[in-house]
Amino acid sequence: MIRFDTDYTQGAHPRILQRLAETNLEQTIGYGEDEYCRQAADRIREACKAPGAAVHFLVGGTQTNTTVIASALRPYQGVLSADSGHINIHETGAVEATGHKVLALPVQEGKLTAAQIAEYVDWQALNDSAEHMVQPGMVYLSNPTEVGTIYSKEELTAISTVCKSRGIYLFLDGARLGYGLMCPENDLTLEDLAKLCDVFYIGGTKVGALFGEAVVIVNDRLKRDFRYNIKQHGGMLAKGRLLGIQFLTLFEDNLYFEISAHAIELARKLKRGLSELGIPFYMESPTNQQFVILPDTVCQELSKSFAYEYQERMDESHSAIRFCTCWATSEEQVQALLAELKRLKEGAA
Amino acid sequence: MIRFDTDYTQGAHPRILQRLAETNLEQTIGYGEDEYCRQAADRIREACKAPGAAVHFLVGGTQTNTTVIASALRPYQGVLSADSGHINIHETGAVEATGHKVLALPVQEGKLTAAQIAEYVDWQALNDSAEHMVQPGMVYLSNPTEVGTIYSKEELTAISTVCKSRGIYLFLDGARLGYGLMCPENDLTLEDLAKLCDVFYIGGTKVGALFGEAVVIVNDRLKRDFRYNIKQHGGMLAKGRLLGIQFLTLFEDNLYFEISAHAIELARKLKRGLSELGIPFYMESPTNQQFVILPDTVCQELSKSFAYEYQERMDESHSAIRFCTCWATSEEQVQALLAELKRLKEGAA
Amino acid sequence: MIRFDTDYTQGAHPRILQRLAETNLEQTIGYGEDEYCRQAADRIREACKAPGAAVHFLVGGTQTNTTVIASALRPYQGVLSADSGHINIHETGAVEATGHKVLALPVQEGKLTAAQIAEYVDWQALNDSAEHMVQPGMVYLSNPTEVGTIYSKEELTAISTVCKSRGIYLFLDGARLGYGLMCPENDLTLEDLAKLCDVFYIGGTKVGALFGEAVVIVNDRLKRDFRYNIKQHGGMLAKGRLLGIQFLTLFEDNLYFEISAHAIELARKLKRGLSELGIPFYMESPTNQQFVILPDTVCQELSKSFAYEYQERMDESHSAIRFCTCWATSEEQVQALLAELKRLKEGAA
Amino acid sequence: MIRFDTDYTQGAHPRILQRLAETNLEQTIGYGEDEYCRQAADRIREACKAPGAAVHFLVGGTQTNTTVIASALRPYQGVLSADSGHINIHETGAVEATGHKVLALPVQEGKLTAAQIAEYVDWQALNDSAEHMVQPGMVYLSNPTEVGTIYSKEELTAISTVCKSRGIYLFLDGARLGYGLMCPENDLTLEDLAKLCDVFYIGGTKVGALFGEAVVIVNDRLKRDFRYNIKQHGGMLAKGRLLGIQFLTLFEDNLYFEISAHAIELARKLKRGLSELGIPFYMESPTNQQFVILPDTVCQELSKSFAYEYQERMDESHSAIRFCTCWATSEEQVQALLAELKRLKEGAA
Repeated sequence: MIRFDTDYTQGAHPRILQRLAETNLEQTIGYGEDEYCRQAADRIREACKAPGAAVHFLVGGTQTNTTVIASALRPYQGVLSADSGHINIHETGAVEATGHKVLALPVQEGKLTAAQIAEYVDWQALNDSAEHMVQPGMVYLSNPTEVGTIYSKEELTAISTVCKSRGIYLFLDGARLGYGLMCPENDLTLEDLAKLCDVFYIGGTKVGALFGEAVVIVNDRLKRDFRYNIKQHGGMLAKGRLLGIQFLTLFEDNLYFEISAHAIELARKLKRGLSELGIPFYMESPTNQQFVILPDTVCQELSKSFAYEYQERMDESHSAIRFCTCWATSEEQVQALLAELKRLKEGAA
Repeated sequence: MIRFDTDYTQGAHPRILQRLAETNLEQTIGYGEDEYCRQAADRIREACKAPGAAVHFLVGGTQTNTTVIASALRPYQGVLSADSGHINIHETGAVEATGHKVLALPVQEGKLTAAQIAEYVDWQALNDSAEHMVQPGMVYLSNPTEVGTIYSKEELTAISTVCKSRGIYLFLDGARLGYGLMCPENDLTLEDLAKLCDVFYIGGTKVGALFGEAVVIVNDRLKRDFRYNIKQHGGMLAKGRLLGIQFLTLFEDNLYFEISAHAIELARKLKRGLSELGIPFYMESPTNQQFVILPDTVCQELSKSFAYEYQERMDESHSAIRFCTCWATSEEQVQALLAELKRLKEGAA
Repeated sequence: MIRFDTDYTQGAHPRILQRLAETNLEQTIGYGEDEYCRQAADRIREACKAPGAAVHFLVGGTQTNTTVIASALRPYQGVLSADSGHINIHETGAVEATGHKVLALPVQEGKLTAAQIAEYVDWQALNDSAEHMVQPGMVYLSNPTEVGTIYSKEELTAISTVCKSRGIYLFLDGARLGYGLMCPENDLTLEDLAKLCDVFYIGGTKVGALFGEAVVIVNDRLKRDFRYNIKQHGGMLAKGRLLGIQFLTLFEDNLYFEISAHAIELARKLKRGLSELGIPFYMESPTNQQFVILPDTVCQELSKSFAYEYQERMDESHSAIRFCTCWATSEEQVQALLAELKRLKEGAA
Repeated sequence: MIRFDTDYTQGAHPRILQRLAETNLEQTIGYGEDEYCRQAADRIREACKAPGAAVHFLVGGTQTNTTVIASALRPYQGVLSADSGHINIHETGAVEATGHKVLALPVQEGKLTAAQIAEYVDWQALNDSAEHMVQPGMVYLSNPTEVGTIYSKEELTAISTVCKSRGIYLFLDGARLGYGLMCPENDLTLEDLAKLCDVFYIGGTKVGALFGEAVVIVNDRLKRDFRYNIKQHGGMLAKGRLLGIQFLTLFEDNLYFEISAHAIELARKLKRGLSELGIPFYMESPTNQQFVILPDTVCQELSKSFAYEYQERMDESHSAIRFCTCWATSEEQVQALLAELKRLKEGAA
């Protein structure tokens, strides 16, 4: 079985494992106050050209989203999200569990627009019943999105401008950030994110780490006492240095970007191959998630030797499914998948 | 200024005020454990032909919805609601503030359908990512709905059947229940509600009381320790007998139904008059809320002497607005509104 | 049965009922934005000599405490309270239900001290594990306290100074405020409260109203969007003018203070009588709650004709119980209670 | 600097690291549904002789405590805990953040008693104001406790009996469980815990793992949909197999118990050494945490080469501090600490 269902089917990049082994018996202070975390934070600040940013390391994405959102909102505020947003669909109501509504707006390709945000915020603010409604206090974007698309610098700038003018925070979920930054279609940099967002995170779990997400807080108002929030949400790892060591390794020698580029290269090979096989795409994605539409009979056969993720039923006999490449995917795996799809396609013909 | 904006612009039915005055200096135990509350609960159980039901009195609608929903759901469960549902739009995220997602489904005329509910519940339950999603634990309906429509016995029976088969609770918000029960198009009775729902409430605030909602809990599993939930949500009125006295008065001599019928009669006169004026309706409503579409210029003029509620922008120059009759509306007020609309219409022509 | 168990056994002061009847059929806008609420707020601002204060009307005490506290604290903050504080014991965890810990400090006579607060706040702030602890963000006081005692101006000033110097809010629960302000031992005024507290409330439920608490917000930071919080916590009464009318009546012609003084006068007569009977006091209280220690046998006999509230077991055969006077208590009721106690005492002898 | 401040200053037992390296490039399904988690759960069920138990793996202690408690309690219930309990003091109000009060009872040596629990539960249940109080729904114990003490089988049996008779859950926090089970004074086994508790967890973070806690749910009522709760609380590790691999390694070849025994052996050597130096103990602890009272001057000197944890101020010139041994502590480290203390003691003399 070769797995293309997600981008977290394997462990960590070998250099990370090696570093963990080398440092294993060192004694450090706990809870992220060690030297490795400090150095990793410095590297990330440098990479973002944001010397004043606060950098914190959490274990996983749901935890990170919840902690950031709950710490930023007032009790009666909610967070605007694409209806396809991870916080809206796939976090078991974690944001609501902290008392805040996810204000889901309908989107087509996983992306909110500046106009859409402005319209909603203004509509609520000027409504006769404004006080009876949840007030938007933050915008949540994922980049890349849950369907593999990315925001352009122009789009993100427009959203940032709307947020600033309305006094609401902009938060970018970068669980797959590396895969977004390294695709040729992308024109955003870490530096841009640090300028345009109030807070964002750089995902490690899906990009080479065993686990871990690095939160970068740019807006001073969000910095205060953030560690209290981390602790309360169960995100303060006792052996915090594990996170520091991992991110230090990822942000040394360009590793984070190199392994992201590797995944993108293979995703493009996969995409080209799928295209050559005449398989229709569910979504035009430039990143490591590729979505195609296949007959259910093909899906069933395929599942005997390849794992994919089910996305959506398209019609009575077709489904949309997802393939992910990642830092650890090999060329051979991609070729094997394409060969099998070719075989199934010919068999079906 | 004559107000048609809501159905709670005035005080209480005079018989209620009189009763409050007569009993004012009686001393009773607090928190709803007095004799008036007991008697009122008995009357309501009789009216519902539900001798085993638990009846509790709360002060307002948002409080009641929140208390019922939060007490019924497990932490990872949400409540299914029409996207136009009061809990989804007009309660400042009160349900989410207790940790639960409102799972909003798109509806046309304010009403969920059994098929829609079944489809959503089954989709979540069978989803590969089920555990990453909020599990529906309850269905919330309002009857009449926020746009004045009502559920038929057949529709409610179908919904009840779906809920029972999937093991989720059915909760009906009856903030305007009297106005629904007393319109000619209605074929539901309190007895039906007690059979089909797990819990519902009979609204007093909008139907003759100063304030107050009577929660009727039919399902035994929801009865346990319900008063703890009321207290925790700030809904346990110290002088609880005020609620008992009001509901006792409303459920003596058929008062609740008589005053509801009065409002419906005037709503029908208003509807007929609007229709005769050729004013288009935004929604076909058989109850005390009537929604029409008017030119913005007319709205502006009208607002000088009549209060209405703004509903929605229809196009660049037209808006949908709402008129409510209630137990206290007079025939003269309705005629005055129609006369003014006629005048404005003719002026516009 | 004559009830001395609580101070909310009866309805409202007759002048309030009369006002409600007179205004019953007036039409007003809902949710507290009517003229009566505006006028009542003005009167209260005048009484407090706090022209810049925001005044809001809520229905009950638990709701008010919860709304104020939850709107003021950051997610990781808690509220300091006497361990005997109402929010700590008698609100079914309503504060915790909003996500905040009640940081209970041990007290003897219902009162926190400035030193105690300073010590706790400093201990937490300087603790090595500070981020692993709940940060105190507010001090909650009740005045009069749950055991009838009151804060002196000196004591409250000292507490206020500690709060300001540590950057935490001071909130005073005045559910029985009138009874505190009107006792001869008191040297605090509404004006003092408005100067020393960030927010406090003037209780109506226990002092002449059918229900209602008037929140006075002095600190600007707590004013923002407070109505959103009220709505979310289910405290925004649809017919908000009911609250406005009641508080307007209470703050016209000095009514609030007169009826409070009446209760205090009778409490003093009761206290003197109890003292003359040689009945030991559980607590030295200058206000409308009087606590005595009686043999269980006397309690049992007494309960046949008088309602009191059980406070605490003192030893195997004695209990502490509470008697409350209120705005509606009559001299005859007090004499009847004393006479019965005398009879029982002589019987026991 | 040699660290004795906590038991999580180092990485993981080398065998765990090796296993992680060996399996690093295997592809598995995520979120704890892989084969390693399944096998680890089986091993733990065997070790507990509880074939019907549900076993789940979470990342950290605060997260585990919060998830277990919030999933078990009804909204108006709280959890009984020693006032020194970790959830009461050192989790930044994480339990309260889920809406539940920690009902803290005063204890002397970190331990609740059956009598104390029974008294509180009965007092609340029979109280006139029961519905105004938080209802205890669960008892939280830590074993070993935060001050190193342990429960005997007799004590835990008595507590379990009280819980069962009152219908409340018993939850045991075993963050340091191995160190409790392996000390000579202990007479409890994993099998006993599975019989006496409704749910407990076996700590990995402090006992040889990089991170991880294994929750063992024995009571069927607590099993339902537990994974939803894990996900909602951000505790569902994407690469869940990391937890499975670690616990599988710990529960193969007795590793968990061996390394725990090692820490205990060194703790006893340390304890004996401290005793021989005439250093007074703050607490009589049989486990890996040793608490002593030292002059502040000694503490200060000591801190130049040894890390300890500050516990409490004893008087103007003395403090209580904590030393922890763990699976990775070496005999040399213990001897170095004792030597330094001896040197400082002699210097002080």
